[in-house]
Amino acid sequence: MNKVITEFVGTFFLVMGAALGGGLGAGLALMVMVYAGGHISGAHYNPAVSLAVWIRGKSNTADMISYWMSQAAGAITAALVVANLFEVEGTSICVISDSGILKGLFAEMIGTFALAYVVLNVATAKGTSGNSFYGLAIGGTVFAMATVIGKFSGGAYNPAVAIGLSLQKTFCWSQIWIYMVGCFIGGALAGIVFKMNNPGDK
Amino acid sequence: MNKVITEFVGTFFLVMGAALGGGLGAGLALMVMVYAGGHISGAHYNPAVSLAVWIRGKSNTADMISYWMSQAAGAITAALVVANLFEVEGTSICVISDSGILKGLFAEMIGTFALAYVVLNVATAKGTSGNSFYGLAIGGTVFAMATVIGKFSGGAYNPAVAIGLSLQKTFCWSQIWIYMVGCFIGGALAGIVFKMNNPGDK
Amino acid sequence: MNKVITEFVGTFFLVMGAALGGGLGAGLALMVMVYAGGHISGAHYNPAVSLAVWIRGKSNTADMISYWMSQAAGAITAALVVANLFEVEGTSICVISDSGILKGLFAEMIGTFALAYVVLNVATAKGTSGNSFYGLAIGGTVFAMATVIGKFSGGAYNPAVAIGLSLQKTFCWSQIWIYMVGCFIGGALAGIVFKMNNPGDK
Amino acid sequence: MNKVITEFVGTFFLVMGAALGGGLGAGLALMVMVYAGGHISGAHYNPAVSLAVWIRGKSNTADMISYWMSQAAGAITAALVVANLFEVEGTSICVISDSGILKGLFAEMIGTFALAYVVLNVATAKGTSGNSFYGLAIGGTVFAMATVIGKFSGGAYNPAVAIGLSLQKTFCWSQIWIYMVGCFIGGALAGIVFKMNNPGDK
Repeated sequence: MNKVITEFVGTFFLVMGAALGGGLGAGLALMVMVYAGGHISGAHYNPAVSLAVWIRGKSNTADMISYWMSQAAGAITAALVVANLFEVEGTSICVISDSGILKGLFAEMIGTFALAYVVLNVATAKGTSGNSFYGLAIGGTVFAMATVIGKFSGGAYNPAVAIGLSLQKTFCWSQIWIYMVGCFIGGALAGIVFKMNNPGDK
Repeated sequence: MNKVITEFVGTFFLVMGAALGGGLGAGLALMVMVYAGGHISGAHYNPAVSLAVWIRGKSNTADMISYWMSQAAGAITAALVVANLFEVEGTSICVISDSGILKGLFAEMIGTFALAYVVLNVATAKGTSGNSFYGLAIGGTVFAMATVIGKFSGGAYNPAVAIGLSLQKTFCWSQIWIYMVGCFIGGALAGIVFKMNNPGDK
Repeated sequence: MNKVITEFVGTFFLVMGAALGGGLGAGLALMVMVYAGGHISGAHYNPAVSLAVWIRGKSNTADMISYWMSQAAGAITAALVVANLFEVEGTSICVISDSGILKGLFAEMIGTFALAYVVLNVATAKGTSGNSFYGLAIGGTVFAMATVIGKFSGGAYNPAVAIGLSLQKTFCWSQIWIYMVGCFIGGALAGIVFKMNNPGDK
Repeated sequence: MNKVITEFVGTFFLVMGAALGGGLGAGLALMVMVYAGGHISGAHYNPAVSLAVWIRGKSNTADMISYWMSQAAGAITAALVVANLFEVEGTSICVISDSGILKGLFAEMIGTFALAYVVLNVATAKGTSGNSFYGLAIGGTVFAMATVIGKFSGGAYNPAVAIGLSLQKTFCWSQIWIYMVGCFIGGALAGIVFKMNNPGDK
């Protein structure tokens, strides 16, 4: 239950950060919430990261599903707070143009790969255990990817963020599949690469 | 006495940072002063954080009150230095519009909740003891919240900052209650959530 | 093989960051990839850094050459992805004017010296072993040098970045020698200064 | 001798950062050079910090004087490189207006106090020994102070930086006394406050 609450709180602030503060707001919110919640839940705040951790063998299926539900609930709550309490809504115009769909799909895949690759290495690997940099590295990856390739997809790298931003009308629902497909593939690839690269680290 | 001086110095630089450097100045000043003073006083620099630490059970009532007085003194001194020595004053026009009071109240509550939640987890929890990231996480939260929801309230997240900015005329005195109510409720909620989430950590 | 994959992934994201996100994108990408890959390959992502580490005596010649090949492959892959998938290309107009060649050469030499000097001290020295700041210091150096002297050369400080940016047409091939000469001399000087300054650290 | 070389290199990059990259460039350069050189020389790069460390009792007079000479040499070299190699010079017009001299003097005093107070607490105190945040805190203080009160004096907080910027004509020689007086008083006050606040830490 502690883990579920922690994932809810962290995802809430991450999605609020993405909706109202762009790549910098999302990266900073993620950094501080990873530091605040890492010791309780591992601080995924991202269904694609939870998938990568599951592939890497550091969580069981029931945990992954409860994390997913908590992350979705945090994202939806953040979207409702932003849209109804702070009254900031998008226009539901799609962020990605029709000719940019392949770029958007690859941007989400590459960005989520980077994020999950960093998470697995800084927060679950033997070789970096006990470090103090995991939040900086994880939040920094979201800010980095938003700065570098954010323009191609709006920079979610996280299915929960994509759901939240679609509900709050910054993204459009007809493109939600791009984020789902791109993010889960990117996260899964990171899990596979991590296992290849760290054969002795179970 | 060391603690009182440390809280005074840290709050002085935080309020000067907020008055003259906005969210970035406040976040940076808080980060460096938390690293400088954490080993002496715990580096609250914020009456709402001191309340959260008291609720969490890591300080006694007398200490909380002496911290509050020291923080208020630091904030007032900073406001006087900014207004009279550097001659930078606001216009006493209220930051929050009449129709935005509810948004401002919630923004202060949510921002202070985030700040106190991060402080309790990174600076008082067993699971993160001995870390080197507490100042980055705490200062980063103020910068994050100012970036994300700063426009709704001016971004104090700290009753001492609100007093200092009101004295220096960036905020107006008629809205000081918004910051008092929002910040203390946010801090108290963080203390309650921390205790729920960390039952074995007394 | 793990090391080769790690160097490939890290250099790929560094060069993509430099091509699409400037000094901030490159510095952030380098920081997070150093934290992700340091425990596997040492996280050079830069042939001039690999040379400095070799001079300092912490790698053998075969390793240096396999790192160089992996770094070149990562840089070329990033350039192809940026140019062909994201369709962002430069104009092949040289970044450095004819009268600015000496400045460009010194800027690359000074910037790469700073980078390799920081790497050797934070990631290979006895006196800083076990620290959590190496990625921040290394990525921060690229961002610092790009901010301070980036305008004189475009700010590569890395032969692999220079190759990638030339292929993607942000740099011109006729000036590639400036980056090769400047970066390798800067890295070699850092190796020599480190050995002078740390006589007891083999 | 290692210490002298380390102070020279660090001050060189700090002054180049201040001359060509403003508060951000100076703060970043200081952060990375503190991480690179802290294990060798303590990484002062600032005569007022060396004075504070001497007052605090962590260096002897001969060391302080050799540090001062090395810092001055690094600053002068940086100024010559910036002015003659990169050909970037100021106009020797004074940064501080005649009516702003008192503000400039206090700004340098307050900023240098903050910097030396942070250095003593994060790099010389028992209670923070072994931390990984010292470079972030120290570089962050220069960036914070430049952001918050930089406009009142140009933001040196360091007599060596003031000498370098005067030689490179960003500052004017007739106001060098403001930086000397302000910085050394600020550093000395920090030493005194540290000793008061940490009576058991010799």
